[in-house]
Amino acid sequence: MSSATKSVTLEGRFCMHRGGYLESPTLAYETWGELNEKRSNAILLFSGLSPSAHAASSAEDRSAGWWEDMIGSGLPLDSDEYFIICVNSLGSCFGSTGAASVDPETGKLYRLNFPVLTLEDVADAAHGVVKHLGIDKLHTVIGCSMGGMSGIAYCVRHPDGVARFVSISSATRTLPFGIAVRSLQREMIRCDPKWDGGQYEADNSPIQGQRLARKLGMITYRSPQEWDQRFGRERSTSDSHPGNPFGIDFSVESYLENQGNKFTGGFDPNCYLYLSRASDLFDLAEHGGSIPAAMRRLKLQKTLVIGVTTDILFPLHQQRELADGLSKVCMDTRFVPLDCIRGHDSFLVDMDAFRPVICEFFESCCD
Amino acid sequence: MSSATKSVTLEGRFCMHRGGYLESPTLAYETWGELNEKRSNAILLFSGLSPSAHAASSAEDRSAGWWEDMIGSGLPLDSDEYFIICVNSLGSCFGSTGAASVDPETGKLYRLNFPVLTLEDVADAAHGVVKHLGIDKLHTVIGCSMGGMSGIAYCVRHPDGVARFVSISSATRTLPFGIAVRSLQREMIRCDPKWDGGQYEADNSPIQGQRLARKLGMITYRSPQEWDQRFGRERSTSDSHPGNPFGIDFSVESYLENQGNKFTGGFDPNCYLYLSRASDLFDLAEHGGSIPAAMRRLKLQKTLVIGVTTDILFPLHQQRELADGLSKVCMDTRFVPLDCIRGHDSFLVDMDAFRPVICEFFESCCD
Repeated sequence: MSSATKSVTLEGRFCMHRGGYLESPTLAYETWGELNEKRSNAILLFSGLSPSAHAASSAEDRSAGWWEDMIGSGLPLDSDEYFIICVNSLGSCFGSTGAASVDPETGKLYRLNFPVLTLEDVADAAHGVVKHLGIDKLHTVIGCSMGGMSGIAYCVRHPDGVARFVSISSATRTLPFGIAVRSLQREMIRCDPKWDGGQYEADNSPIQGQRLARKLGMITYRSPQEWDQRFGRERSTSDSHPGNPFGIDFSVESYLENQGNKFTGGFDPNCYLYLSRASDLFDLAEHGGSIPAAMRRLKLQKTLVIGVTTDILFPLHQQRELADGLSKVCMDTRFVPLDCIRGHDSFLVDMDAFRPVICEFFESCCD
Repeated sequence: MSSATKSVTLEGRFCMHRGGYLESPTLAYETWGELNEKRSNAILLFSGLSPSAHAASSAEDRSAGWWEDMIGSGLPLDSDEYFIICVNSLGSCFGSTGAASVDPETGKLYRLNFPVLTLEDVADAAHGVVKHLGIDKLHTVIGCSMGGMSGIAYCVRHPDGVARFVSISSATRTLPFGIAVRSLQREMIRCDPKWDGGQYEADNSPIQGQRLARKLGMITYRSPQEWDQRFGRERSTSDSHPGNPFGIDFSVESYLENQGNKFTGGFDPNCYLYLSRASDLFDLAEHGGSIPAAMRRLKLQKTLVIGVTTDILFPLHQQRELADGLSKVCMDTRFVPLDCIRGHDSFLVDMDAFRPVICEFFESCCD
């Protein structure tokens, strides 16, 4: 874990949205900048499924974070002006309580005894951190990918606690294509004999299944258009095992191999299963019976929805739907479809496209 | 195998496109209709990766074939007028020689000793069947999906042997998205411990890996748009294992489970690996150094390219590219983009859209 990571224990019984509870869960978080006297300049950032709270470097930890180019002095999330908080999602494994944590009531790892996790729980746990920091009302909630769904869950469950919302490459709910992809990723992990019903040891975990799941992830996180340009039918320079049907022939296969290997070991498989399913389960319409009813619960004064034309996991029409819904309850809503080529992951790699849009959002805030 | 299936042995050494050979391979095929006196009414049909030669029912076998609504008396491939041949691809496992066949030189199954398979080999083996049937020039070669690539391989390698070509949801080559998907499907099978380096027994084969590969297949064979309409966020009625992260929650997951279970057992895993890789390896540009150079080798008098707007595996722009290339060497080329919702598989399920286009093609043939 980053040396900049702090943590807080939410004392008492934390009741989960779909039943069950956690006894005094821990939440890991990092912050950048200073909270002003009025406590009115706090931004809460929700990450996608896999990142930690280390979104950017700081004096305490100089290593680059997962949104390094976006957070800091003079950057779109400007630490000279704002107090930025990133919480490691409840259910994750980078300091926050999840399936890989010890259940204080049994002294053993939760594993599959962890209760069903939802993005409402992720939002509520982050709200606990915000309260702990003495903040009543956030200047802005901002979330990327799954984090955008956690973010809108925060806004609908704590409407008086947030003034503005920024959704990046997210949606009001997952549609069947996304469910199918994630369901298959989870099955790949469970089919690895080393998963062993969730009872694997840390040094003998289902790495093979995780590699496969990561490869499928990359297929949906990027775009065919990017790969046409980047790889085409270029051959791999690594050993191609000529004469057998299972070597690596093409550059795109080498790329996936590298991506698959990079990810494994870093993320606990059971935590992945829980967070992945939480993404599938989320449906904003459950808050009031319909999307419009849920929207009417919001008390936002300004919102921004950014989507990418080549995103196949959170397709643009879903982001337009989110923006349309928000615009009916919040006059100052802006929808920005970006013509980036790198698909869902664009917000992590195409900073030149995202930076000005997010800058403009904060510059046009009138308090 | 269907009782309507005939077979022919191509006597002697069959040299493979990328090296190696098969000793007197067998090809399974079915036919519908009668060859006319001039031997000028033969249509050769290439299937996608997984079907057998049983494309339609006949007097010998009343069971429905994989393109039942398309072949027969009064149907678009009209058996009253044409002599239609469907060959089980070389390398497959429904009567044609493949990795699951006995190598006559060793008396053992080929397994991974089968030479590298290409779609040029699939085309050449089908050409052997056509010669065996005494046909010098085919009226039309028609191919669906992978079969479209086998079909264009046939046209470029035997330009004097074919007068017309119909490509359905195919391409001149596989782009990186398709390579990535197929490569991952192959890896899923190889990662199943029961694959055992290809040495599995028929009654103990890597069914788990095949199930996963089939599920990924279905994700790319259909379309997100179809699933939005068909499933939305509808819950599955099957046992959802409440409280654990690996049950089936949604209808789309039940659907994939059924599809995965249906496919396994029917197709030999090693054969699948070979044919899947053959699809990735195919590149029409290798015939002459570029797509235009390959096109100039063709001697076609009429072509038709049909594609589907929602196809993510063989996207429309690839089919437009094929049609553009054909139009430069064949005046009578027609490109028909169909606005079907069921993605790549539309040619198997949306017959009302495909039937009139294929009918029109054959009706407008002037001999």
